[in-house]
Amino acid sequence: MSNTNNRIVSGMRPTGRLHLGHYFGVLVNWIKIQEDNECFFFVADWHAMTSEYSDPRRIKGFVPDLVKDWIAAGLDPEKCTIFHQSQVKEHAELHLILSMLTPVGWLERNPTYKEMRQALTQKDLATYGFLGYPVLMAADILMYKSTLVPVGQDQLPHLELAREIARRFNYLNGEFFPEPEAMLTADAKLPGLDGRKMSKSYNNGIFLGESADEMRPKVMTMLTDSNRLRKADPGDPEICNLYPYHKLLTGADKCAEIEAGCRDASWGCVDCKKLLADNMAKFLEPMHERRAKLDENPDIVWQILAEGTAKARARAQENMEIIREKVGFNF
Amino acid sequence: MSNTNNRIVSGMRPTGRLHLGHYFGVLVNWIKIQEDNECFFFVADWHAMTSEYSDPRRIKGFVPDLVKDWIAAGLDPEKCTIFHQSQVKEHAELHLILSMLTPVGWLERNPTYKEMRQALTQKDLATYGFLGYPVLMAADILMYKSTLVPVGQDQLPHLELAREIARRFNYLNGEFFPEPEAMLTADAKLPGLDGRKMSKSYNNGIFLGESADEMRPKVMTMLTDSNRLRKADPGDPEICNLYPYHKLLTGADKCAEIEAGCRDASWGCVDCKKLLADNMAKFLEPMHERRAKLDENPDIVWQILAEGTAKARARAQENMEIIREKVGFNF
Repeated sequence: MSNTNNRIVSGMRPTGRLHLGHYFGVLVNWIKIQEDNECFFFVADWHAMTSEYSDPRRIKGFVPDLVKDWIAAGLDPEKCTIFHQSQVKEHAELHLILSMLTPVGWLERNPTYKEMRQALTQKDLATYGFLGYPVLMAADILMYKSTLVPVGQDQLPHLELAREIARRFNYLNGEFFPEPEAMLTADAKLPGLDGRKMSKSYNNGIFLGESADEMRPKVMTMLTDSNRLRKADPGDPEICNLYPYHKLLTGADKCAEIEAGCRDASWGCVDCKKLLADNMAKFLEPMHERRAKLDENPDIVWQILAEGTAKARARAQENMEIIREKVGFNF
Repeated sequence: MSNTNNRIVSGMRPTGRLHLGHYFGVLVNWIKIQEDNECFFFVADWHAMTSEYSDPRRIKGFVPDLVKDWIAAGLDPEKCTIFHQSQVKEHAELHLILSMLTPVGWLERNPTYKEMRQALTQKDLATYGFLGYPVLMAADILMYKSTLVPVGQDQLPHLELAREIARRFNYLNGEFFPEPEAMLTADAKLPGLDGRKMSKSYNNGIFLGESADEMRPKVMTMLTDSNRLRKADPGDPEICNLYPYHKLLTGADKCAEIEAGCRDASWGCVDCKKLLADNMAKFLEPMHERRAKLDENPDIVWQILAEGTAKARARAQENMEIIREKVGFNF
């Protein structure tokens, strides 16, 4: 399926500031696809509740920040619909309807369910809502009759469930939902500053909203090839933590030069870090400018969200009317 | 807890015409409690969907009939709020929120879940929605801050789950829901015409909407004490299928007379049936009169339902606003 002229739905959970991993893993793709597709990007606060149910009040504060991060990164509310999941109540209704026709076994076999339960052992995630995460995700996607869903490899089983749920609904109630196809996003696998996976909980990321002054010292302490103890030792960019960043932020010609210089020890790590910090500052600068503009009037983010939510809600209501008719709940 | 001045919520699934078993098992109690309590009685069409998901369009036709049966039986829309579950969308929203804090284990251990899955083997009930039946029921009950819920013995585990969910919500988000108490309804255990449990699927019941002409031949073919082959044989009312009906429909004095006459063979089964048919006709007559009035204008049932639903919705919206505030989803 071509990646243009599709209806695309994708969301992020408001659980904290976005870092470069989010940008290169998700946002860079969103920013691209908003150009030629009808895109709905949503703040998945009900999804955030699955893991934050013991203190859901934490979620609220992250909502405007998430939208700010998106717009600063390049999402354009003129080109895409940015909306707020919990403010389109139809998602809860469709979730309930789809829950009736989704076998529990489909959910129990979901590998993400098994893995996340094991990974997050400090939280009791064996809740009904967490088990039904893919049902809510199916409701989010199917509500807008999405044809394409950007997913990472790890999200594929969820999308497969949404497709199965769509098929089952269509079989029982008559054709309505397209089966959304996966738009597999290239896994950028940007390592954290310390070489581990970039993650909020490791505090090893560079946040999109971070100033150059905050960012620069972080870059200067980044781990490089740990076998290269002195500048005179030849290095290996393949095991250097900096190099993946250069590949994303520094031009291909300069990268070739860096690589050669690292291998023949003519180019040192400190210079390499300085160059990366410069390029990262250049990369982050337009985001910071857009963010500064948004910060001039904090209401603007809420306004954008409200307008997008109204647009999404209108579409959701339109489709829910047909869905209710299909299941005979049009009273 | 006293049975007056409580807020009481109870529902029935719209899956067919009501029979005498429903009347003496549930309705007779509803009619009583509407006098001194704030009662919400609802058409549980989303609950009906748990078992009817493969053809949910069947449900719609049963909705007005159910309300007609209720009002004909004596529910008074001036005294209680009769509403339509799927038309108060807040139930879906609260269901979603409660799903986040309900451990799957609580639901899997629910004996009704286990039993119903075994009993209804012809239908594949291992769905996510069926597993979550008690979560939806908790949402129905807690939405109105019910203090009392009329339940049969078999529904007690569901109510216990609703209480546990209320406790957990209050613990995590601050006190809001009262823990609803059980109002255990006396199990009338009215047998079907053939002595088995009165059930739609056995076709062995007398429907509330049935005319005397339809009812009478059914009564005349009812099973009595099968050891009493001739009128001259003494009978045993304790094992007669008619006698429980007499106890409900025939006065205590006359019942004593019948019982003695049966035991000393001075009173025969045919006379006994004729008397029961007469008393049953008298009992059903006011229901038929109220039903005939409702039938004069079929819109009236829909109007009653719409008005009650608007009333319930206003209350649900009011409470949902506080609930959203409690979980920090008041945007």
